[in-house]
Amino acid sequence: MTDILPSYVRGQWWAPSEEPGQEAAPVVVRDSSTGEEVCRLSTAGIDLGAVLNYARTTGQASLGALTFHQRAVLLKRFAQVLTERKQELYDLSRRAGATERDSLSDVDGGIGVLFTYSSKARRELPDGRVYLDGPVEVLSKDGSFLGRHVYTRLPGAAVQINAFNFPMWGALEKFAPAFLAGVPSVVKPASPTAYVAEAWVRILVETGLLPDGSLQLVSGSVPDLFEHLRLGDLVGFTGSASTAERLRSHECVQTVGVRFTSETDSINASVLGPDAVPGTPEFDAYVRQLLVELTTKAGQKCTAIRRAIVPAGQVDALVDAVRAKIAERVVIGDPRAEGVTMGPLVSLEQREEVRRSVAALVDGGGRLLLGSTEPPEVVRSDGSTGVAERGAFVEPMLIGFADASAPAVHQVEAFGPVASVLPYATVEEAAELVSLGGGSLVTSVATNDPSVAATLLSRTAAYNGRILFLDRDDARTSTGHGAPVPHLVHGGPGRAGGGEELGGMRAVLHHMQRTAVQGSPEMLTALTGVWHQGAASRTDRHPFRKPLSELAVGDQVVSASRAVTLDDIETFARFTGDLFYAHMDEEAAAANPFFPGRVAHGYLLVSWAAGLFVDPEPGPVLANYGLENLRFVTPVSPGDEIRVVLTAKQITPRETDEYGEVRWDAVIRNQDDELVASYDVLTLVAKEPAGVSP
Amino acid sequence: MTDILPSYVRGQWWAPSEEPGQEAAPVVVRDSSTGEEVCRLSTAGIDLGAVLNYARTTGQASLGALTFHQRAVLLKRFAQVLTERKQELYDLSRRAGATERDSLSDVDGGIGVLFTYSSKARRELPDGRVYLDGPVEVLSKDGSFLGRHVYTRLPGAAVQINAFNFPMWGALEKFAPAFLAGVPSVVKPASPTAYVAEAWVRILVETGLLPDGSLQLVSGSVPDLFEHLRLGDLVGFTGSASTAERLRSHECVQTVGVRFTSETDSINASVLGPDAVPGTPEFDAYVRQLLVELTTKAGQKCTAIRRAIVPAGQVDALVDAVRAKIAERVVIGDPRAEGVTMGPLVSLEQREEVRRSVAALVDGGGRLLLGSTEPPEVVRSDGSTGVAERGAFVEPMLIGFADASAPAVHQVEAFGPVASVLPYATVEEAAELVSLGGGSLVTSVATNDPSVAATLLSRTAAYNGRILFLDRDDARTSTGHGAPVPHLVHGGPGRAGGGEELGGMRAVLHHMQRTAVQGSPEMLTALTGVWHQGAASRTDRHPFRKPLSELAVGDQVVSASRAVTLDDIETFARFTGDLFYAHMDEEAAAANPFFPGRVAHGYLLVSWAAGLFVDPEPGPVLANYGLENLRFVTPVSPGDEIRVVLTAKQITPRETDEYGEVRWDAVIRNQDDELVASYDVLTLVAKEPAGVSP
Repeated sequence: MTDILPSYVRGQWWAPSEEPGQEAAPVVVRDSSTGEEVCRLSTAGIDLGAVLNYARTTGQASLGALTFHQRAVLLKRFAQVLTERKQELYDLSRRAGATERDSLSDVDGGIGVLFTYSSKARRELPDGRVYLDGPVEVLSKDGSFLGRHVYTRLPGAAVQINAFNFPMWGALEKFAPAFLAGVPSVVKPASPTAYVAEAWVRILVETGLLPDGSLQLVSGSVPDLFEHLRLGDLVGFTGSASTAERLRSHECVQTVGVRFTSETDSINASVLGPDAVPGTPEFDAYVRQLLVELTTKAGQKCTAIRRAIVPAGQVDALVDAVRAKIAERVVIGDPRAEGVTMGPLVSLEQREEVRRSVAALVDGGGRLLLGSTEPPEVVRSDGSTGVAERGAFVEPMLIGFADASAPAVHQVEAFGPVASVLPYATVEEAAELVSLGGGSLVTSVATNDPSVAATLLSRTAAYNGRILFLDRDDARTSTGHGAPVPHLVHGGPGRAGGGEELGGMRAVLHHMQRTAVQGSPEMLTALTGVWHQGAASRTDRHPFRKPLSELAVGDQVVSASRAVTLDDIETFARFTGDLFYAHMDEEAAAANPFFPGRVAHGYLLVSWAAGLFVDPEPGPVLANYGLENLRFVTPVSPGDEIRVVLTAKQITPRETDEYGEVRWDAVIRNQDDELVASYDVLTLVAKEPAGVSP
Repeated sequence: MTDILPSYVRGQWWAPSEEPGQEAAPVVVRDSSTGEEVCRLSTAGIDLGAVLNYARTTGQASLGALTFHQRAVLLKRFAQVLTERKQELYDLSRRAGATERDSLSDVDGGIGVLFTYSSKARRELPDGRVYLDGPVEVLSKDGSFLGRHVYTRLPGAAVQINAFNFPMWGALEKFAPAFLAGVPSVVKPASPTAYVAEAWVRILVETGLLPDGSLQLVSGSVPDLFEHLRLGDLVGFTGSASTAERLRSHECVQTVGVRFTSETDSINASVLGPDAVPGTPEFDAYVRQLLVELTTKAGQKCTAIRRAIVPAGQVDALVDAVRAKIAERVVIGDPRAEGVTMGPLVSLEQREEVRRSVAALVDGGGRLLLGSTEPPEVVRSDGSTGVAERGAFVEPMLIGFADASAPAVHQVEAFGPVASVLPYATVEEAAELVSLGGGSLVTSVATNDPSVAATLLSRTAAYNGRILFLDRDDARTSTGHGAPVPHLVHGGPGRAGGGEELGGMRAVLHHMQRTAVQGSPEMLTALTGVWHQGAASRTDRHPFRKPLSELAVGDQVVSASRAVTLDDIETFARFTGDLFYAHMDEEAAAANPFFPGRVAHGYLLVSWAAGLFVDPEPGPVLANYGLENLRFVTPVSPGDEIRVVLTAKQITPRETDEYGEVRWDAVIRNQDDELVASYDVLTLVAKEPAGVSP
């Protein structure tokens, strides 16, 4: 049984214990270029219920022991180890038809997701387990009843069903946010590239750093998986729209409430603006990008351009330009051969599927303008050339449509190096054509005319998960039509699956439940770890004398009062140069609708407040690195007094430094107890007293 | 045909033009207390496809002509008009069994949603049509390629299918966010209270203020509605879990991508903490709340408490306390009679449904501890009393379960004044019982012990849309277990429907599509109306001299440089009292990991920056009302020079004032062009030059 690709479940590598019967014959996976057998897949006898339960118990427990930041630090370690062993993954990916450039998006792209999520999480999430969404809502006049939204992780397993085209990036972009959220992953790779997924999982397992149960891999089919799902589990699916539809209709999704997100192939569009005529940087950028989308991964990308929507008068110019680029740059062949820039499709089955789809497009009114479905001339691994015999090779194709609204072009996807070219007359018509796709992952637009861009945005944004505007300023720095970035959401409405992935911390939150929590300030402080106005405070000693090991939320300093004189205002005005009339001219100030007469500068008030609350001697407070949400409420006139109350609100020790962030709640009031200003002061504070190393 | 309740579609009132045939016999709606006929419902012959198209064309166009703030101002007008005519709605609601207190939640509650959404929208949304989600993501090293997320409205109709229990609140809490988003509503009320919905719609129509097509009402059944839905439409459903499931399974949702949110009755729980023994304020609050939930709307609330989860030793004390409260406070009868505190169920059909569910609970292991399904003694509208004969009256019931994990109690909902009482031994067990509900709208917890609260939050948050913590501090000010508030999300996972409504602007965004937009700074500025770092700027004259009518994003002032001396730092320290060692003590400052030696105060820098950029004479800039996102990046040492660039970033004229908000991008750099600090300055600026009235 050594040729069966193992699964990694319940903390160990697993393969069927006996030869599967005829009814469960293993799937044979073959090399895309040569047709040689690579491995076999079988899950005969696997207990998927136990796999899920292991995630829900052991996986939830081990991830639950870690904070967001601790999980983020692990993601970075995983990324570093995968970087060290990148070459293995490149070599293996070649068997699936991936060129060096293709692996740049899959292997490096996957590693990049881990790095980005690791650093973004430490910047954007607290170092805890609960994420607070939005501000406090005060629900009673006296402030004794508050509401706010918290995100807590889903209590189940994240089942991740991946597509064959990105065995690494596609899996890691689901794994990273699940891991950060604290939800264990069960990864189900697609058969044709399951061995690449097995490789990166093996590398991570070998680090010994994976929390128990946080990652499991099922290398093969999962026929009864959905029978075992329950509320608290979620499924992230990438693949065909028809499979997504079948899975989504399962009772566990429809009735029980298993969260299901899907990201499916869509008929993405790319619009050439009417201003982007040949000779403009936008036309060149459009052509370059279309070529990239046709040839990267041999066009096997759910984000690839399927519909080039082009001013009717520019169709010929575009096709000519693409033809010239192909002649200049595209070398089809075995990715192991020198100089090859475009590999085969992943399998012969996929090639047949592409041929069928091209036929359907032609039947639906299309005409091949470029390329054909015949086997192309290719470079073999030994460097020899000839017409492709065994591998799943096809050449880039452009299909023209005289009638741009022909249904086939908006419905049929040829999942390979194939795009249709649709002529349009007006920008409104181009927008209408975009929306005929029924929902897309991405649309790109090449234009340097903001009015063209604005029309397309307002009319097509609701039909797209992402819209890329190419112009002369970003043509060279754009990450490209087909490249999702971890910072931005990936997914789209309708035909694109209706889901969202990535988008920075948004994807982490998709693995959590948003719950409105109502309670008293004291209770909300206890539950969130963040001090709420009205909760208990302590003024035992100056909080600036407490390192993080001693500081607690609610630690407070109440300042003395200080009276503001006209002389103070004038001194400050002269020193800063801020001679704004509201501070300097009684008559003009009184004419202002917001001031009773001359008032103190807002910056004077916050500067004095610092003078009132600061404890000046060296100590654990290292720096004030910023300030947030400052609002000036009641103006301060000469003769008024101010005092400030500063309270430790949120404490975030850093995982990898000897200090952390402390956010302080600052409130300035006047002699009548009216609110003068409120804001948050942001400081860096040492974990231990000076001289103490942990 | 005068007795058919009209619909309001395509800008006019509509009723069937001829007597419906036998196959479409009108539904007869009866008075809940007396059984008298109130009206009949029929939609025979209505063209629902045309209704939806009217929303998608006329409705989208008229709402699209307005900004978020303009729509918000209209919501406030609607709320004012409904307030003026509140008595009509109260009177009508009595026919449906609503007491004065019941109407407080339905009528006043509905009006309150409009007021809250109107004011929150003007505070939290820009005065435009696009909502920016999250910060700019810089996607290229040179800053020429940026990404950010925008929300644009869905291009279709919002179909709102409401439940019978809240004909006003339940409809308006869907209508308000749809209206704000710019998506036209098609309201489908439930039959038993359709005449109350007709009344508030009629009041709004009579104002003449409704944008054409923004609100349509279909008074009756909508059998083929879903056949007409398409991508860009959305459905908000409130009602039974089984109907939600049937609707959700429709092809338009599963395949086409019509957005479907549901909020269904759930088996909500209320936990009495182990510390909340009789005699504590928490016990009293728990009893009071349970009584309110049993009797308000005669228990016909999707948020009502169905499972009282109580320490085993306190079951008897609880039942006794509830019994005493009922004797003291509950008077069942016709809401038109003086002194009645609890009305009938909405219909005899509902009474039968409740009786069936109680029987199922008893069959499933329950025992009636309080009340019965027999007709109770009631007060008739004329003040006489006697056993109920015709109306849909039932009395409050508590059903005890010895086995708290009996399936029936977690699955069967008696949609009336009925709750089960479940004993528990440990807090963990109580949490487990909560989660057995399979997803709830709300769970409440009465405890004064933060550790009890923390355990319940961490173990049950993922199973709840809302969790309310009652303690001695908020017992009197709490808005209550069963009362969703517009500020917080309403909806829950699993059995509760898996959807979200309300939650402030979150519900507006549920009516919009989030799209990642990538482009150059110039293009993103043009598309969003918000200036992006790197886009063009203008320095023609000082922007503080421009009123909103002349100011444009990108208007900029570039200041002169100013050198900082040690003397300046000491002057500022003495003036403010801020003698922090990093400013005053060279040796100690140099020992700090972030400073090269003594550095200028951060507050000195922003104060000087104001002195550098401000234009002091009276003019359109009225006040600096705040500051956001201040970050100090590079410290400033004596001898360094600083200068500041201030650029108009976002301009928000107020709809109802002669001024508006301007957000300025402020960047301080040193003599080596290093970033010293960045922040946003918030100002109020007049729309017109002084002396010019619009």
